[in-house]
Amino acid sequence: MIAGRIDALRAEMRKRKIDMYIVPTSDFHESEYVGEHFKARKFITGFTGSAGTAVITLEEAGLWTDGRYFIQAEKELAGTPVTLYRMGEEGVPTVREYVEKNLGPAGCLGFDGRVVNAKDGAGYEKTALDRQGSVYVEEDLVGLVWEGRPGLPKHPAYILAEKYAGEGVQSKLGRLRGKMKEKGAGIHILTSLYDIAWLFNIRGGDIPHVPVALSFAAITMKESFWFVHEEVLSQALKDYCRENKITICPYEGIYSYASQIPAGESVLLDPKIVNYRIFHSLPEGGKAIQADNPTEWMKAVKNETEISNIRNAHVKDGVAFTKFMYWLKTHVGKMEITEISASDYLESLRRAQDLFVDLSFDTISAYGPNAAMMHYTATPDSDTRLEPHGFLLVDSGGHYLDGSTDITRTMALGELSWEEKFHFTTVCRSNLNLAAAKFLYGCCGLNLDILSRGPLWELGLDYKCGTGHGIGYLLNVHEGPNGFRWKLVPERNDSCVLEEGMVTTDEPGLYLEGKYGIRTENELLCKKAGKNEYGQFMEFEAITYAPIDLDAILPEEMTARERKLLNDYHKMVYREISPFLTEEEQKWLAGYTREI
Amino acid sequence: MIAGRIDALRAEMRKRKIDMYIVPTSDFHESEYVGEHFKARKFITGFTGSAGTAVITLEEAGLWTDGRYFIQAEKELAGTPVTLYRMGEEGVPTVREYVEKNLGPAGCLGFDGRVVNAKDGAGYEKTALDRQGSVYVEEDLVGLVWEGRPGLPKHPAYILAEKYAGEGVQSKLGRLRGKMKEKGAGIHILTSLYDIAWLFNIRGGDIPHVPVALSFAAITMKESFWFVHEEVLSQALKDYCRENKITICPYEGIYSYASQIPAGESVLLDPKIVNYRIFHSLPEGGKAIQADNPTEWMKAVKNETEISNIRNAHVKDGVAFTKFMYWLKTHVGKMEITEISASDYLESLRRAQDLFVDLSFDTISAYGPNAAMMHYTATPDSDTRLEPHGFLLVDSGGHYLDGSTDITRTMALGELSWEEKFHFTTVCRSNLNLAAAKFLYGCCGLNLDILSRGPLWELGLDYKCGTGHGIGYLLNVHEGPNGFRWKLVPERNDSCVLEEGMVTTDEPGLYLEGKYGIRTENELLCKKAGKNEYGQFMEFEAITYAPIDLDAILPEEMTARERKLLNDYHKMVYREISPFLTEEEQKWLAGYTREI
Repeated sequence: MIAGRIDALRAEMRKRKIDMYIVPTSDFHESEYVGEHFKARKFITGFTGSAGTAVITLEEAGLWTDGRYFIQAEKELAGTPVTLYRMGEEGVPTVREYVEKNLGPAGCLGFDGRVVNAKDGAGYEKTALDRQGSVYVEEDLVGLVWEGRPGLPKHPAYILAEKYAGEGVQSKLGRLRGKMKEKGAGIHILTSLYDIAWLFNIRGGDIPHVPVALSFAAITMKESFWFVHEEVLSQALKDYCRENKITICPYEGIYSYASQIPAGESVLLDPKIVNYRIFHSLPEGGKAIQADNPTEWMKAVKNETEISNIRNAHVKDGVAFTKFMYWLKTHVGKMEITEISASDYLESLRRAQDLFVDLSFDTISAYGPNAAMMHYTATPDSDTRLEPHGFLLVDSGGHYLDGSTDITRTMALGELSWEEKFHFTTVCRSNLNLAAAKFLYGCCGLNLDILSRGPLWELGLDYKCGTGHGIGYLLNVHEGPNGFRWKLVPERNDSCVLEEGMVTTDEPGLYLEGKYGIRTENELLCKKAGKNEYGQFMEFEAITYAPIDLDAILPEEMTARERKLLNDYHKMVYREISPFLTEEEQKWLAGYTREI
Repeated sequence: MIAGRIDALRAEMRKRKIDMYIVPTSDFHESEYVGEHFKARKFITGFTGSAGTAVITLEEAGLWTDGRYFIQAEKELAGTPVTLYRMGEEGVPTVREYVEKNLGPAGCLGFDGRVVNAKDGAGYEKTALDRQGSVYVEEDLVGLVWEGRPGLPKHPAYILAEKYAGEGVQSKLGRLRGKMKEKGAGIHILTSLYDIAWLFNIRGGDIPHVPVALSFAAITMKESFWFVHEEVLSQALKDYCRENKITICPYEGIYSYASQIPAGESVLLDPKIVNYRIFHSLPEGGKAIQADNPTEWMKAVKNETEISNIRNAHVKDGVAFTKFMYWLKTHVGKMEITEISASDYLESLRRAQDLFVDLSFDTISAYGPNAAMMHYTATPDSDTRLEPHGFLLVDSGGHYLDGSTDITRTMALGELSWEEKFHFTTVCRSNLNLAAAKFLYGCCGLNLDILSRGPLWELGLDYKCGTGHGIGYLLNVHEGPNGFRWKLVPERNDSCVLEEGMVTTDEPGLYLEGKYGIRTENELLCKKAGKNEYGQFMEFEAITYAPIDLDAILPEEMTARERKLLNDYHKMVYREISPFLTEEEQKWLAGYTREI
């Protein structure tokens, strides 16, 4: 099937004399997750993971993906003509290096100019021009060969009330215009769906589990333009836009808007996000101020209303998770439970919570060796029955009107080996050590990452991903510019100075292929600690409330400090969660949050 | 006296219509320490610390220095018209900001073009030109008013034999030319005295405790030019230069050499080091490749011969220090000992060691509150008698033909308060935690610094400096590009990826003004640990051998792991040092390296 699709694509490439065609994982907005309409890379390679880039030449087909997906991609690409390139491994070329090596003299490099950002597009263009070649960017070739392709998503959008957002759109626009002024910009083109949703206090349903509306925005010093499918707007939303002086324009209108910007105007945009076609619609000789979207940092620093809401959302989410954990631990082995039925049950508990909107991402419910695949999703084919031994890893979360959650717990379903417990205890220590950091203002994730990774590195172990990411408020659960990572990855833009009000996940793990996977994830709110002659100290508060499974803990492998950190955490979990449990559940939770 | 000097300088400024004059702490080579001839900033302000910049206007005089020197500078500037600017503190302008704010329209900014590097010079020049002003750089104004100024240093230079250097000059030149080729450079202008000494395997005596020879170098693909005072060269050294095809030229010849480089030639140079006058002697339109000197990284990665020599030097140095510590701890309170007499005794023990060349820097011997000044040097005026209580901090080291050392120990001279012991124990934990790091290749000091700083940050404490620096081989004890620091300081260039063979100090401390200072410093050799599917792991080996004073340790404030780290370290100290001690000293050392 995949071979046939690739052949069809090559036929279209030949017609247009295209030598190499790039299919990234992207919509027109550089969204991390994309709706079905945009899953061109999945269509052409068969790899279902959320990240990856395909490069098709007339002879070869390659897929690039990162460490989270190596095991999964290997399985899914088996039997296809697609070669897996493991990004970041020694000796493996990057997409760019591959393109540079394999695009011949005068070669033609093709891609859909709407799904490649301006920065990457400029790089590809340079590679082609360096070879006296050309780019072909006006057509979506995968679209031509994709029969039965789902249409563009057009789900209803809605207003996020100020009691949830904590700041009105006029205030946000005022702050944004201040930043535009600082940078000398008269117009700001904003195409990140998360940032548009945050700025206008609107939400939508155009990406599964990411409640955003497919749209573009342009902000001038006096006006705001929202390029959006009119069908998704209710009358109330239209009225809201009128009240807030947001002019509604057709979704596709962004390209002509960009082309009509006066040549003398300074346009602020982020070329890592704004797509190649928009960028090339700007007038020749215009001044593009290329910088991060100011809204990225603004939305990462949660306001007091948001923080208070988020805490509340976490209590509800923690109640759902704790009830799930109680049920799981007391029922496993006594009834038929599978990865999927377990996650379905967890979902039902979340849905019962006040102000629930959606799951915040596809739940990972992975038993035993399945959990060694970092981003495994159980399918009816892979769905595994839970047995009363080994680990179940559940990475899940909920969107509520009062905030989004992202929590991972790994739970012992019965007997564990000493090694399993030792590794679980080590991951728990990693999590606790980072959460307990006290540091001077000015630190970024790069400074702190080793607190989490250190206990694993000491054993010669590691996890092939960052330690944590910023988390959106009823938006994408992954957001910048905050994060924990030991090595700078410039395109991730997640290494900013940690500010009061930022929320970042703390999710060290261990993934042993063919054996098991362990991850313990809490969200950390960054707060001010004391200020003295040395500077402003900062600290974290864990705002995720659910037991870390004591059945898998070896207290003797923890320091007294680490045991105290775990005990203090568990005391807080009991305090926050127990009021919402049945008496039986309370008794169970008391045991699972006992002092060790 | 200082006021009179500043008045005399202002008179010279007025004659030339100069509005502002900058006096940095520098020779013509951006050396960290400078000979007496070059101490213009000390002459004009009275501040004797090793780092600082003076800015003199017709109305104001300011001195900028860093956290190490705040206390000392405050004392030394008292009663002078010079204002102290505490670099890095909130609200304190940088030198650049001060210049920008205070240089008026069409103002004239002056400095000696030989003591300001090309990068800073370009910045000053821009500030002046932005104001339609000018720079005045051809004269050394401080020199005009400095009566009895010492002459340029011209001490004998000598060859460092290959059994010490571990690599011949031809091999080094070959590697350097390889790096020049990579960067597309035909000529490399090298003005760092340390790098020239390393490259040519020569040493000199032109900076106290930094055995280098005042000189410049230019390397082409076929030739090497050494611009050096002929008086410092022995016949043997001249023969050595001839054999190695190093052409000797007059020291001042570098400026005309630079001006005669053909305009088409690509010249590699580091504008952070090459002085403004050399840079401006290059032909207009020539191509300057501005990059770090490749030799900086090359000399930081010690070769096997150097490493084996360095270990040996550390054993000798450790023997001297341990004998000193034994003497100090057994004699204090029983005889008259002062800060200076103690450091003199330590020096005599070092001088008795094989292959001793010099102290590697001015010993810091600081008793009680004096040690709160990070870089205090006892003078006959300040020299304090040691009493049998409190702490003596001794930061010292030796240059040997087989390597240089830098070690700090803080020693209890008798009774200590609980707080003193608690702080000492915390600093010891900081030191041990960093030394025990195991980490993936690719980490730099920024990633690891918190291992050391963390235990202090947890208490709301800090030290206002980096945690450690690279260390030269019979060169400057401070060298890049390796180091431990939590915040990038671009001009320090000490945040490179840690490589096998790099030696870096590990010297956390605590400085409580008016109370005491504590620092514990070991040198760490970076080595490969295991390699597996996660990557290449790295680790450190402490190569400094002297007891960490157990009289000041509170074992109950350490984790079991930390106690084991200290015990293992002390076991190694006893093994390496005891064979060279008297029976009585051995017995003492056994006690001071006992298991806790």
